Amino acid sequence: MAIQPPRGTRDFMPAVMIRREYLIEMIRAVFRDYGFQPMETPAFESWELLSKKGGGGEAVKDEIYYFKDKAYREMGLRFDLTVPLARVVVANPQFPKPFKCYQIGKVWRYDRPQAGRFREFWQTDADIVGSQSMDCEAECLALAVNVLSQLGFRKFKVRLNDRKILNGVMEVAGIGKKMEADVFRVLDKLEKIGPGEVKKELGRIIPPRKARTIMDAIGKSGSPSSMLRDSPGIESSTVADEGMNELRDLVGKCKTYGIGKYLEIDFSMVRGLEYYTGPIFEIFIESERNVGSVGGGGRYDNLVELYGGKWTPAVGISLGIERIYDIMESEGMFDQPKTRTEVFVVAVDDSVRKDAIMVAQELRAKFANVETDLMGRDMKKQLAYVNAQGIPFAVFVGPAELKKGRFTVRDMKSGKEAGLGLVQMAKRFGKG
Amino acid sequence: MAIQPPRGTRDFMPAVMIRREYLIEMIRAVFRDYGFQPMETPAFESWELLSKKGGGGEAVKDEIYYFKDKAYREMGLRFDLTVPLARVVVANPQFPKPFKCYQIGKVWRYDRPQAGRFREFWQTDADIVGSQSMDCEAECLALAVNVLSQLGFRKFKVRLNDRKILNGVMEVAGIGKKMEADVFRVLDKLEKIGPGEVKKELGRIIPPRKARTIMDAIGKSGSPSSMLRDSPGIESSTVADEGMNELRDLVGKCKTYGIGKYLEIDFSMVRGLEYYTGPIFEIFIESERNVGSVGGGGRYDNLVELYGGKWTPAVGISLGIERIYDIMESEGMFDQPKTRTEVFVVAVDDSVRKDAIMVAQELRAKFANVETDLMGRDMKKQLAYVNAQGIPFAVFVGPAELKKGRFTVRDMKSGKEAGLGLVQMAKRFGKG
Repeated sequence: MAIQPPRGTRDFMPAVMIRREYLIEMIRAVFRDYGFQPMETPAFESWELLSKKGGGGEAVKDEIYYFKDKAYREMGLRFDLTVPLARVVVANPQFPKPFKCYQIGKVWRYDRPQAGRFREFWQTDADIVGSQSMDCEAECLALAVNVLSQLGFRKFKVRLNDRKILNGVMEVAGIGKKMEADVFRVLDKLEKIGPGEVKKELGRIIPPRKARTIMDAIGKSGSPSSMLRDSPGIESSTVADEGMNELRDLVGKCKTYGIGKYLEIDFSMVRGLEYYTGPIFEIFIESERNVGSVGGGGRYDNLVELYGGKWTPAVGISLGIERIYDIMESEGMFDQPKTRTEVFVVAVDDSVRKDAIMVAQELRAKFANVETDLMGRDMKKQLAYVNAQGIPFAVFVGPAELKKGRFTVRDMKSGKEAGLGLVQMAKRFGKG
Repeated sequence: MAIQPPRGTRDFMPAVMIRREYLIEMIRAVFRDYGFQPMETPAFESWELLSKKGGGGEAVKDEIYYFKDKAYREMGLRFDLTVPLARVVVANPQFPKPFKCYQIGKVWRYDRPQAGRFREFWQTDADIVGSQSMDCEAECLALAVNVLSQLGFRKFKVRLNDRKILNGVMEVAGIGKKMEADVFRVLDKLEKIGPGEVKKELGRIIPPRKARTIMDAIGKSGSPSSMLRDSPGIESSTVADEGMNELRDLVGKCKTYGIGKYLEIDFSMVRGLEYYTGPIFEIFIESERNVGSVGGGGRYDNLVELYGGKWTPAVGISLGIERIYDIMESEGMFDQPKTRTEVFVVAVDDSVRKDAIMVAQELRAKFANVETDLMGRDMKKQLAYVNAQGIPFAVFVGPAELKKGRFTVRDMKSGKEAGLGLVQMAKRFGKG
């Protein structure tokens, strides 16, 4: 029998989970700081819903976990948290606007598993539904900057672009609506395969002259101040012009939020998912491990309408746990212990086993994280377990200690000992 | 297009999610108090693994979400958190024992949806792997009592039984191994259909005389002191005797843990899942809403071996979020606000919009949960939103306030106002 988890999925053991929990709890805390409210949807959705995302259709079936339930309903595991959110908004038109919500949960994609790419992974999303103002984009980005800063990152960039600028470029280059998705799919590979290869691939699906026009227009990135002065080559497009104005507005608002220095404009940035309609963004951490973007998002004003709701503007940002974790791990940024247990209560002999349990219960009542022996082990073996687990403190309960009402507390790292009563111990280790 | 979640699943909107988060965070905190470490496994597992649970086989296929992935691997969404844990233990024999871990996550069962019964729901499990001592059972039960007490429950019962006693009863009644599972399945309905119906149903699959023997032996429940004195009708079974001794040992240990008063022995209690080998338990809350057990568990010493590992004793307890939530909701035990936002920063006119954002950012930096206008609304409409959302405080930012460096803070419930500077506000609302 296979004892490994299914291909592309992972088990998370305690030492890793403690770090993942820290990461998720930190992100959740910042979501709350910004006034986002929690929301949750099922792991699977109807195939009808999942397949409707911009131009996806049957092709989506190859990229997701698709199945029929026992009533032959077509279903799929969700591949993101935005599509379910759009369904919820359609189903609940009564929510006061803006509807600000966060979602933290697993999503599934049937990708080829490779380094840093999994079939099951966690996403943490914050969305603002109901407002057309660039304040929303700025707030989502401020939130992301805040998360990364609080996690200890110093060097990262927020890359901005606007779907309207990309659409304008298509217009100027004379690419019809039908070809757009294909062109964007090639452009999306820029980071991976470089401009030379992209141009070549474009040349295979559109005339080389058009490919050149596109590459000239988008082949630039830099600081907002230099990039937003003018948009060379696409002045003739009204929609691109609109996009430029959106970015100018957004950059100004980001400055108010105190995050101007992180911004970079990159006209070549296309985001994979096709539901975006305005500003799009991706967040990159500068690190030895080049893991690509650790998060991104954008404006998707038409998605709710696509699912049958009233036209509803919306913006969202998604932060990926897996890549952030990888960078923090490889840069030694975690300082979580490998166990959450703070204290092990040692029964020094068999006569005091009950007392050891009672001491443990006392400390737990004060919200200290406590273990005690569950194996009938002698003192030596109990201490071996304490060391194997990396539990930082041992409290010794023995007949003499019980008589005095003071217990020896040993710092397992330094070996230093102190005699403490129950009340002092509860204060020392307790959280409440 | 269907805008409802798939049959048997649910969307959780913010007001409900805030309560669910509270519930889950409380349970997690108690798991940590008891020295359990976090663990996580994938949402789906191989069909081979899922079907192997005691006597399940093909029948399991009807009760779970079964599918083939694109490489024709047979898969299923997990139906509990214990089977994946057993796989993890097989895959990681090196873990120091006892291995104490908790899991909090979704599981899926293809049941007929009905009141309080869903196809997707959360479980919170704590397990102790590697010890045969009844200390483990006692600790799991103390943990459950602790969770319920901290959530505010006063009246609840822990019902105990032991698989060995049930096996002894089968032995005495002359029920062969092959029939046992069928008999247990009927006994499991006792609470639902009553002893008369159970006897009738048993009579259909075994001789009435045997049915009577069984019903006489198990038709008793009561306090440990009365129930453990002797086990009428099953003295002749060594295995039942062993079960009685386990329960005596366990009851004694529970007293040390301070939870003796919650115990009740019920010889008729069978738990649905078939991997248990020793003590089993279920937790019942006394409430108007008779929702059945809110949690349970037991000893499953053979499961790791069944999956190809070394024989490894283990005990676990599982608490169900859904039923606990339902009771707390119907008894008015939640006092969570309907929004997590504490403060809304009001821009009194358009000239101070940037300043309002900066004030909001200052408060967020101190870990207060803050919203500000994202819709370009006037003051009146901003306050309408504050009221619609139930945000408890509004901070007014206007030209005069900015000049003074003091802002009017309004308690939205009482209408009381106070003038506070930024530092005071941060202290008032901040968490850090």
